[in-house]
Amino acid sequence: MTEKEQIGWKQIEQMAGSSGLAAMEELQKFSPRLAKLALEFGYGDVYNDDALDLKQRALITLSSLITQGDAGRGLAYHFRAALHVGLSKEEIMETVHHCSAYAGFPKAIHALFIFKEVLEEDN
Amino acid sequence: MTEKEQIGWKQIEQMAGSSGLAAMEELQKFSPRLAKLALEFGYGDVYNDDALDLKQRALITLSSLITQGDAGRGLAYHFRAALHVGLSKEEIMETVHHCSAYAGFPKAIHALFIFKEVLEEDN
Amino acid sequence: MTEKEQIGWKQIEQMAGSSGLAAMEELQKFSPRLAKLALEFGYGDVYNDDALDLKQRALITLSSLITQGDAGRGLAYHFRAALHVGLSKEEIMETVHHCSAYAGFPKAIHALFIFKEVLEEDN
Amino acid sequence: MTEKEQIGWKQIEQMAGSSGLAAMEELQKFSPRLAKLALEFGYGDVYNDDALDLKQRALITLSSLITQGDAGRGLAYHFRAALHVGLSKEEIMETVHHCSAYAGFPKAIHALFIFKEVLEEDN
Amino acid sequence: MTEKEQIGWKQIEQMAGSSGLAAMEELQKFSPRLAKLALEFGYGDVYNDDALDLKQRALITLSSLITQGDAGRGLAYHFRAALHVGLSKEEIMETVHHCSAYAGFPKAIHALFIFKEVLEEDN
Amino acid sequence: MTEKEQIGWKQIEQMAGSSGLAAMEELQKFSPRLAKLALEFGYGDVYNDDALDLKQRALITLSSLITQGDAGRGLAYHFRAALHVGLSKEEIMETVHHCSAYAGFPKAIHALFIFKEVLEEDN
Repeated sequence: MTEKEQIGWKQIEQMAGSSGLAAMEELQKFSPRLAKLALEFGYGDVYNDDALDLKQRALITLSSLITQGDAGRGLAYHFRAALHVGLSKEEIMETVHHCSAYAGFPKAIHALFIFKEVLEEDN
Repeated sequence: MTEKEQIGWKQIEQMAGSSGLAAMEELQKFSPRLAKLALEFGYGDVYNDDALDLKQRALITLSSLITQGDAGRGLAYHFRAALHVGLSKEEIMETVHHCSAYAGFPKAIHALFIFKEVLEEDN
Repeated sequence: MTEKEQIGWKQIEQMAGSSGLAAMEELQKFSPRLAKLALEFGYGDVYNDDALDLKQRALITLSSLITQGDAGRGLAYHFRAALHVGLSKEEIMETVHHCSAYAGFPKAIHALFIFKEVLEEDN
Repeated sequence: MTEKEQIGWKQIEQMAGSSGLAAMEELQKFSPRLAKLALEFGYGDVYNDDALDLKQRALITLSSLITQGDAGRGLAYHFRAALHVGLSKEEIMETVHHCSAYAGFPKAIHALFIFKEVLEEDN
Repeated sequence: MTEKEQIGWKQIEQMAGSSGLAAMEELQKFSPRLAKLALEFGYGDVYNDDALDLKQRALITLSSLITQGDAGRGLAYHFRAALHVGLSKEEIMETVHHCSAYAGFPKAIHALFIFKEVLEEDN
Repeated sequence: MTEKEQIGWKQIEQMAGSSGLAAMEELQKFSPRLAKLALEFGYGDVYNDDALDLKQRALITLSSLITQGDAGRGLAYHFRAALHVGLSKEEIMETVHHCSAYAGFPKAIHALFIFKEVLEEDN
């Protein structure tokens, strides 16, 4: 394992906990190469910078996924990560509400029901 | 003017300063109705909630615009607003960098050059 | 309840009937705030204007949802609403066909199968 | 010229007038093949059906272009076509306003300023 | 059946085999008109040109579907078609990997898991 | 400079020639970090795999940019790169034509006029 991959795995654990590690391992089984790219570039490089903290990055990531109309897998993963880095349920829901003005109601409502499923599954 | 519109105008001033007011006035001249919707709903309702502060909202807004590939008008307006509410140039650039992993490099690079133009025009 | 919310509820009933009311109530249970924004802004403000009638608005809404590749919830809701305001099955299907030229075949075909499900569920 | 192409040219003239013909001729000079596909499929096939009239199709087309964030060429062409088939300026502007709820404000505002340019250029 | 439709059916068989024919027949049952448009325009016209071969077209189609975040139906159909025209599993997976840089990781990962399902269903 | 960055610079030269190097240097001046991410991840990692050759990657990249409605900078850069790696003008134009069926005519026509500008500027 490269040093950057190691940084990547630690970053995932810090950011998304055990469910994050499990998701990356699932990806890795089918595509070791895409997992390596995500670990080294995404988690090893992009996240490895102090200009923004993990809570700020979670807001940015969620907004991007809401706006691109992510079908569900990415949103569920990153809603869990947002809770894990310490954003409150209220901050996360307001992130979705805020996006209604910028990406339209259908994408906000779609995202909200995925968040609802995440909360229900995890409780 | 409705009370909500008044709240909207104050919110724009706080969030985007004089260049924000000028942009809304330009919109208002061509479409008083869309300006009223944006003032009452966008600024009067959506922004009028304490669950997120203006800096957090700026991160979310920028990520949405970068991800949707905004042609320029929206990005320029909200890069200025992000600086106005106190995000540093470094935080704004890292917002764009972060989006390269979630929305792809072409949209990140496109956004970055619009930010560059904003900085050059305003100095 | 604000006056605008009341207008919103009436507008939903007129536009989407009992299934529309049920969908909004489901949203309201999880996020009273997003429901309020949708009721006041969407149904109370945007729809509350005579420049376009409900049939015209249904065409515009469907085209937007088809084009943004709505995952299903929004399309199903608005296909039902389109039938409810009096668009014929033929007009709705031709709306999807028309979009194949502007948004591509995959989005048109995806939407068509959601319309098929709506028709099957409702009969 | 195939029969379908002839139908296509007539359809463009009916729908978009002389500026529409000029735009298609400009495309044809650079790519005769894409022009032929657009003429035969777009105008000869898709438009050649009575389930929707030209005004309804203009609403659907505009909504698709606003939602996909068309950079300008398509929106300008189809704003002109919408006026040409008899939609009023008020109906067209309300189409844009309506889209603010479904595709977000940035795309609505972007589209509105392109419509403003079209009106200014044509007067 | 028009001559172009016949060319279209042959093209589908060559490109997507029996599962492709079955998918088009399913579409045709619900919307004979959209099936005819897809057959004549998509398969009869667009594919009927020697400037690109079927393998090249498969790469282009997959990239378009990954990038637009196709919900699943289109991606599954075209992953099967890509295998059918002779792209290797490795080439298809690298197409998805490549798109992570241009359309972002969430869309690449979403597409990859649909490809995984296709491989599992077909074996 | 890291080893991966060096690989990245060589890859750009091979793929996009002197105009590619100039574009990356322009990006690097404004954001050394995004340039480093693009060099190490994009060119050093993603492109550094034999499963697809440079011509195949160019088809995939162009299709992604056409589909996401790239405003111009990315399309112009990658149309030049596509010519540089040896795709013919005919193959590039047919890539755009092909996308009309999958991403709609407006995006295909928008891309085609950017390609026209590239050809005119470079001759």
